[in-house]
Amino acid sequence: MSDFREQALHYHAHPVPGKISIELTKPAETVKDLALAYSPGVAEPVREIAADPANAYKYTGKGNMVAVITNGTAILGLGNLGPLASKPVMEGKALLFKRFAGLDSIDIEVKHRTTEDFINTVANIADTFGGINLEDIKAPECFEIEKALIERCSIPVFHDDQHGTAIVTAAGMLNALEVQGKAIEDAIIVCLGAGAAAVACMELLIKCGALREHIYMLDRKGVIHTRRDDLNEYKQLFANNTDKRTLQDVIEDADVFVGVSGPNLLAADDLKLMADRPVVFACSNPDPEIDPQLAHAARNDLIMATGRSDYPNQVNNVLCFPFIFRGALDVRASEINDEMKIAAVEAIRSIAKELVPAEVLTAAGIDKLEFGAKYIIPKPMDPRLLPRIAKAVAQAAVDSGVAQIDMPENYMA
Amino acid sequence: MSDFREQALHYHAHPVPGKISIELTKPAETVKDLALAYSPGVAEPVREIAADPANAYKYTGKGNMVAVITNGTAILGLGNLGPLASKPVMEGKALLFKRFAGLDSIDIEVKHRTTEDFINTVANIADTFGGINLEDIKAPECFEIEKALIERCSIPVFHDDQHGTAIVTAAGMLNALEVQGKAIEDAIIVCLGAGAAAVACMELLIKCGALREHIYMLDRKGVIHTRRDDLNEYKQLFANNTDKRTLQDVIEDADVFVGVSGPNLLAADDLKLMADRPVVFACSNPDPEIDPQLAHAARNDLIMATGRSDYPNQVNNVLCFPFIFRGALDVRASEINDEMKIAAVEAIRSIAKELVPAEVLTAAGIDKLEFGAKYIIPKPMDPRLLPRIAKAVAQAAVDSGVAQIDMPENYMA
Repeated sequence: MSDFREQALHYHAHPVPGKISIELTKPAETVKDLALAYSPGVAEPVREIAADPANAYKYTGKGNMVAVITNGTAILGLGNLGPLASKPVMEGKALLFKRFAGLDSIDIEVKHRTTEDFINTVANIADTFGGINLEDIKAPECFEIEKALIERCSIPVFHDDQHGTAIVTAAGMLNALEVQGKAIEDAIIVCLGAGAAAVACMELLIKCGALREHIYMLDRKGVIHTRRDDLNEYKQLFANNTDKRTLQDVIEDADVFVGVSGPNLLAADDLKLMADRPVVFACSNPDPEIDPQLAHAARNDLIMATGRSDYPNQVNNVLCFPFIFRGALDVRASEINDEMKIAAVEAIRSIAKELVPAEVLTAAGIDKLEFGAKYIIPKPMDPRLLPRIAKAVAQAAVDSGVAQIDMPENYMA
Repeated sequence: MSDFREQALHYHAHPVPGKISIELTKPAETVKDLALAYSPGVAEPVREIAADPANAYKYTGKGNMVAVITNGTAILGLGNLGPLASKPVMEGKALLFKRFAGLDSIDIEVKHRTTEDFINTVANIADTFGGINLEDIKAPECFEIEKALIERCSIPVFHDDQHGTAIVTAAGMLNALEVQGKAIEDAIIVCLGAGAAAVACMELLIKCGALREHIYMLDRKGVIHTRRDDLNEYKQLFANNTDKRTLQDVIEDADVFVGVSGPNLLAADDLKLMADRPVVFACSNPDPEIDPQLAHAARNDLIMATGRSDYPNQVNNVLCFPFIFRGALDVRASEINDEMKIAAVEAIRSIAKELVPAEVLTAAGIDKLEFGAKYIIPKPMDPRLLPRIAKAVAQAAVDSGVAQIDMPENYMA
């Protein structure tokens, strides 16, 4: 690990600090170039945009630019280290947007003095960008922040820790249940964790067919139930009218476990209490709620997913966020709505069910991948992700009436 | 002009909209690359920055990144068209930062609801960047905005419309007075215009030796004098205890005219009233306060500068802002102070006095350039500008105690 640590620091420091730079897309060598790029030529696109704001998409980089914005209150698994310390993560996200979807992306770290002040700040700069990816903002503030920004901004605002996680989880979960021969409507679901990702995952599973009364969500105090008086408005939505109080109470006969909490919180003995053919998504990173080897030793009828790349079925947000923004921006969607999220879920699901391209096997260092217990979620390097998800999302935006332009001709063909 | 208009719009629209993009400075192809760039490797630089904020300069792009920030209230000569319409100008400025000084630069267009809200917004996002270039913000708000942001931010904040213009104007003016054989301390100076650039130009000329009581500043209502009761605090600093009221009153026997106002506001007859060997900086763009041909016909003892590239002695901010930021960022100056501005003035002056490299003549399409009435200001394409100005500014930052690191070894050698 020390060696990896050195490699990671070296990667970030050399040959230049950081991971992204600004480059010019137009010639800027001659006096003539500069007269077009700046004064006096630049006055012409200024006038065009003043006459019609939509011309900003024609004459500036706005339409391909995603801001990755944070207050640094929930950095990876590291917690609240403040905005500046989060910068490598945000630049990393910008790198992923470019690498996977060709989107220009810049990180903006924002001092959070009050939630209202943070919202104001982001809303005030929003017109600069084509879309805003909120990142690593802790719950429950993240819910209010995202809601307010969606209302105040005319561009897509998407909190990836919520919805990116939820979309990939839902895609994997629906595939896992299909492999296990279970219907989502019947599944008893235990969700350990009640933060941003937990709430978003459960809400999206409900939109995909899960029944709210089948869901048992647990926070640090145990099961979230209707007699508790310490619940914020987001947890209240999951208050279950039940006498069950502990993880052991609810895990018995459950079909699904979703962990978005912390390492080693699910014991092998708990796992043994679950129903036949259980599905366990242990997404705590880097250490899952239960070690995959331990889990498989306890249950051989299990389908398991984690956040790790060194086990099968990695729940990785990079399967979603670059492509959902690509599709949204390409039809100038004013928001990323449920129809678009569900279109992304279905696109991801369908890719996992199809023959895997040879290059994906090579990149993953695997001989064979076939839809089933060990392959319910596509690999991040799969080249089908970009065209398939972007197109599905763009089409859903058009169909649901939030696209401001038509699908480009032969889009992603 | 219609042809140029088409060219300018085409330049901005093709092959991609806008002028800048985000590119990756690190490999991002393999699974290993991504493990270093993002999870889990990215946690290492996060921890380093949390332990010492200065490590942000080591592991992120902060130290080479300048934000170009505006509220769109004073766009070029076009006025208050709002933030979005200003985007091509701000992207153009970012292009110039990269082209001339290798600085990464991103535009941020900010909704201005109140001045306080604007200041808050910029202060909240400031830590993202290594420096902030304020741009196209109208007076008098620009003064309060810059002052507040300098106080609240630990990075250089520089309003180019004020100080960039002032530095290039001061350099040219001191050279022009030298050619004319006049001392700045003796010069009677008329400044037509009382906006951001006017105030900054006059303040910097005073720091370079001009006497405040020798300056007559005029706004739309005429001479700014001590009996006026309609002056904001910035104009009050230039209230002259005089009975003179009109441009004609003050231009008589004046040594210097600085126009930062509007086209054709100085008549040839006014010019004839000036003292022997006058200096006229008619910087209104694209149409100067007096047409250069008309001016030279009226006075053959004149030295004249304009904002135009098609006449000698162009006052062009690009001679300053890329390089002053380069020098400031390279020693992590906490601000851009007067010592650094004056160092930039002197560096620009000295370049104009030296032998011009052949490539500069070629780029300018000129056979010969020698220090004198027609060459008091270097050409924008002069390759000496970057090393000379950046080094002078960095050294001044170190000497005046605002640099947070030493001069890099062999800096700009």
